[in-house]
Amino acid sequence: MFEAHFQTFEDPEGGVALTARLAAFREELIRRGLTGFVIPRADQQQNEYVPPADERLAWLTGFTGSAGLAAVLTNKAAVFVDGRYTLQAAKQVDTTAWTIESLVEPPPEKWLETHLAAGDRLGFDPWLHTTAAAERLAVACSRAGAELVAVEGNPLDAVWTERPGPPLGQVSIHPAALAGEAAADKLARIRAELARGRLDALVLSDSHAVAWTFNIRGADVAHTPLPLSYALLPKNGRPVIFLDSRKLSNSVRHHLEENADVVAPEALVQRLTDLAGSGATIGLDTATAADALSRLITGAGGKPSRGADPTALLKAVKNAAEIAGTRTAHVRDGVALARFLAWIDREAPTGALTEIDTVEALETFRRETGALKDVSFPTIAGTGPNGAIVHYRVTRKSNRRIALGDLLLIDSGAQYEDGTTDVTRTIAVGTPTAEMRDRFTRVLRGHIAIARAVFPDGTSGAQIDAFARQYLWQAGLDFEHGTGHGVGSYLSVHEGPARISKLGTTPLKRGMILSNEPGYYKADAYGIRIENLELVVAVAPPGAEKAMNGFEALTLAPIDRRLIDPAAMSADDIQWIDAYHTRVRDTLRGALDDATRTWLDAATQPLKA
Amino acid sequence: MFEAHFQTFEDPEGGVALTARLAAFREELIRRGLTGFVIPRADQQQNEYVPPADERLAWLTGFTGSAGLAAVLTNKAAVFVDGRYTLQAAKQVDTTAWTIESLVEPPPEKWLETHLAAGDRLGFDPWLHTTAAAERLAVACSRAGAELVAVEGNPLDAVWTERPGPPLGQVSIHPAALAGEAAADKLARIRAELARGRLDALVLSDSHAVAWTFNIRGADVAHTPLPLSYALLPKNGRPVIFLDSRKLSNSVRHHLEENADVVAPEALVQRLTDLAGSGATIGLDTATAADALSRLITGAGGKPSRGADPTALLKAVKNAAEIAGTRTAHVRDGVALARFLAWIDREAPTGALTEIDTVEALETFRRETGALKDVSFPTIAGTGPNGAIVHYRVTRKSNRRIALGDLLLIDSGAQYEDGTTDVTRTIAVGTPTAEMRDRFTRVLRGHIAIARAVFPDGTSGAQIDAFARQYLWQAGLDFEHGTGHGVGSYLSVHEGPARISKLGTTPLKRGMILSNEPGYYKADAYGIRIENLELVVAVAPPGAEKAMNGFEALTLAPIDRRLIDPAAMSADDIQWIDAYHTRVRDTLRGALDDATRTWLDAATQPLKA
Repeated sequence: MFEAHFQTFEDPEGGVALTARLAAFREELIRRGLTGFVIPRADQQQNEYVPPADERLAWLTGFTGSAGLAAVLTNKAAVFVDGRYTLQAAKQVDTTAWTIESLVEPPPEKWLETHLAAGDRLGFDPWLHTTAAAERLAVACSRAGAELVAVEGNPLDAVWTERPGPPLGQVSIHPAALAGEAAADKLARIRAELARGRLDALVLSDSHAVAWTFNIRGADVAHTPLPLSYALLPKNGRPVIFLDSRKLSNSVRHHLEENADVVAPEALVQRLTDLAGSGATIGLDTATAADALSRLITGAGGKPSRGADPTALLKAVKNAAEIAGTRTAHVRDGVALARFLAWIDREAPTGALTEIDTVEALETFRRETGALKDVSFPTIAGTGPNGAIVHYRVTRKSNRRIALGDLLLIDSGAQYEDGTTDVTRTIAVGTPTAEMRDRFTRVLRGHIAIARAVFPDGTSGAQIDAFARQYLWQAGLDFEHGTGHGVGSYLSVHEGPARISKLGTTPLKRGMILSNEPGYYKADAYGIRIENLELVVAVAPPGAEKAMNGFEALTLAPIDRRLIDPAAMSADDIQWIDAYHTRVRDTLRGALDDATRTWLDAATQPLKA
Repeated sequence: MFEAHFQTFEDPEGGVALTARLAAFREELIRRGLTGFVIPRADQQQNEYVPPADERLAWLTGFTGSAGLAAVLTNKAAVFVDGRYTLQAAKQVDTTAWTIESLVEPPPEKWLETHLAAGDRLGFDPWLHTTAAAERLAVACSRAGAELVAVEGNPLDAVWTERPGPPLGQVSIHPAALAGEAAADKLARIRAELARGRLDALVLSDSHAVAWTFNIRGADVAHTPLPLSYALLPKNGRPVIFLDSRKLSNSVRHHLEENADVVAPEALVQRLTDLAGSGATIGLDTATAADALSRLITGAGGKPSRGADPTALLKAVKNAAEIAGTRTAHVRDGVALARFLAWIDREAPTGALTEIDTVEALETFRRETGALKDVSFPTIAGTGPNGAIVHYRVTRKSNRRIALGDLLLIDSGAQYEDGTTDVTRTIAVGTPTAEMRDRFTRVLRGHIAIARAVFPDGTSGAQIDAFARQYLWQAGLDFEHGTGHGVGSYLSVHEGPARISKLGTTPLKRGMILSNEPGYYKADAYGIRIENLELVVAVAPPGAEKAMNGFEALTLAPIDRRLIDPAAMSADDIQWIDAYHTRVRDTLRGALDDATRTWLDAATQPLKA
């Protein structure tokens, strides 16, 4: 009945003839006069989802996690992963050939410092590292008396005989009615930023930036409608987009050529060399620009100016059309969620459902809206102890039956052309314990503290992050992730630069969309997370002396009342929940079938009559 | 009856033959081949209070504020001040010769960029600027095509014929019982930090650091028991203290010579040159080290390593003896405060008191403890509209009579040998308005939210700052200063590196002392601030999963119940106030005279019976 089109449940394999691959790679290094090499899990643009041709780390080591690095030395090799992936790496990687090391604290550079010998030549592919990352490698080499060597042509690609080609997903026009601003107008705003930053040109090294600027979308990577591409924006004159022409229909080409020249990706190096040759100061995005771009500009006589890509902030502030679109998308998503939550409440207590069943059902309900383009990320569906694994992804092997007494945590999202969604609900199956209700209520109060927050214009996410944690902190508890991330407009579900986290120093501006997702995780027992997307809006308390902002919840889905302890809530908290539930009910019920409507009416009753 | 020994009420004068001084200074610049010069309000160590010999800015321009900069060009001269001092500067400075410009946004560098001509030679005294500040000047010059010139010998000193000599306050030993740790033990901990930072030596360019490390105090500047001095701590071998021997008794000299050589301040340049000549990496404090030190080390072949002075963090964490001392100091201070507040309640409603009367009375009550060494800063006593001026200092001219209906804001502190205090109370004289009570209650709830906060070990002040603001934010209000600063142990009342502010990224550690002082200021009407000092302590909620911290209030003084609206408080807030008042009463009443005891009993009654 239910099925998933956009996500799979296969266990990552690994181990396939990898030892032979490592040996071949080491021979290639020797051929090139290198004594070592580092292989990051990265493409040229530091994308979250990378195309198959860039899965070098997985090809060589077997490790398929979303973050990692390998270092191959003459007689040592290590795979560096973070705490999320320690167990997975141990299973996937041949530990007779590789050791598993820490990716974060200590960082790989510490390991390199220790294991590199004086005189070693450590190679790296400057297209796969940012300049900051390359600088860290250089410091480690220098401390060990070794040399860091930027290679031309990745030696791994030389031995990866069946390496896939680049993705060729068709590019589409993002309709003006949804984009809300013409590319020409966006370009004018970007040029103003170039002037402010005293730049002669700007490289858009982030495909999200290209997609946003020129109002296009693509299909090159999973879950994000990215057209892999670069653009070069001169202070004056016509922009150049670097994009494989096989991805373009005539109409899309004409759309792009209204504002830019479209040339092959291979032309980037020459165009940048020409521009840099005139001594130009060229802006490079700190977060996504490959070190190779910086070297290229310097080598050609130009001046790379590293900083935040100015389009990131422009893109983060949604315009009226994008806001209208996301509201529509969230109503549509809310209908699918209500059907799903009603189904769970009906079916889960029978004991017949597994985690995979819930993922398939949820995707099916979303697909039945007729508007689903993709899920915005693989659904996290963790019941019982699996809920405590923050980045859990269910596989056939890990798949767990939902039992009475479980908490079921479901974090999922959709890509619709009018908006990207991301929502987490935690559902009680059977009767929750008093501890579960206590923890859920603390998380919920934190969620509400963010939802109700009023703060001066210019306040950053870092300043309000602790609002979400205070009730957990009072009990000596916490959650080990940020409270919220930015969300794109039919783009990445994880979009910078604003976030709600102690590291989120970007001021929150009206029109930004951020997630609000505090949680609590009890290892080997259960996980709790409550997530809505929030729109930053102006608020004006009576007598206000300055411009103030707050949030408007975009997500429309009941929060499980069975897990709330009203006696532990303030009157304001209860009023917020009741008002939110009233809004969810009033907005969705007209679009629901009878059974779901009956369920929704019950699920959104006031906490206190 | 009452008098002030440690603070005065004179209006700053200014304007004395200053035009002649400017002309003489310009001639001196020409003599030296310079076309301009910048004069900061700073000494060699970026001290908060500078000795008279370093009041160059005041001598040249007449401006006596605590922060500022002057720039003299061939036919332009400007004094840069921040928002606090705009009015004062306009009164003190001869505006036919000088323009008054912004110190912060835009910064003076913007002005220099505009007004410097290509080819100009702008001089600066590298002993009076940090390296970061010098670098900002260099960028401005380079943008204007001008040259920044580090001078030897300040040209202003050449024309300042009656320039005072350096202060010669006697140095005293800070007793072991109060210091709690021997200098030798502190030196061992600092050497461990040197090893961690791979430093061959460390310059203590902050006299606070020298005082703390070697357990001495001094009398060179106002309100802070500083012995102006430097120290040079080699990784191995004997430290050197640079200190004018006229400030030393034999016993203090012997105390110091247990751990260090003591030499004349003039020897610093030679000693540092010798050490740097061996190629040593020498640590310099980013915040206080003069750019001259960095140049000196580089020039002699050494490597300056700029970073946070490691003693700052060691000093900020108070040991058991220091904590015991501050508790004793706060009980003593609490007795003086109770006498003062009782006196205010008795006398202020008669309409006979002025702001200066209150400053004199408060200092007198503190002096009568027999232990007052100094006030820790000039008392801020602002009644009615003066209370809204955040950095108000009463003068004979500004002195205002306290009227019925006023709020009286008093921010004051004491230097006792066992501890430094800092406390603000806001007192209703007559009947406060409903708005005053609303605002006071919001400020108080913010104060309590900090006082009651529980947070994981490692949490920074930035993460909790907004707790203090949330109730003001809900009404569209805020206060434009940080919530709290670190406080020294018989040292500076403003001590880094920890603070409670959106910029306070230093983790709060057990044993740190910070102020908790939210406020609200209604221009031309009234000011509110409620300040206690807080000690960071471990707290362990039942079932806690991680190490948690909280605060213990050190300050003991009633908070004006007449300004509290209990109906707007939570039950937890009310419980906190009542418990705090009970503790204040129980701790102080045994040490009070009958009249004050009767007053205290009434002032500390529970909010709800």
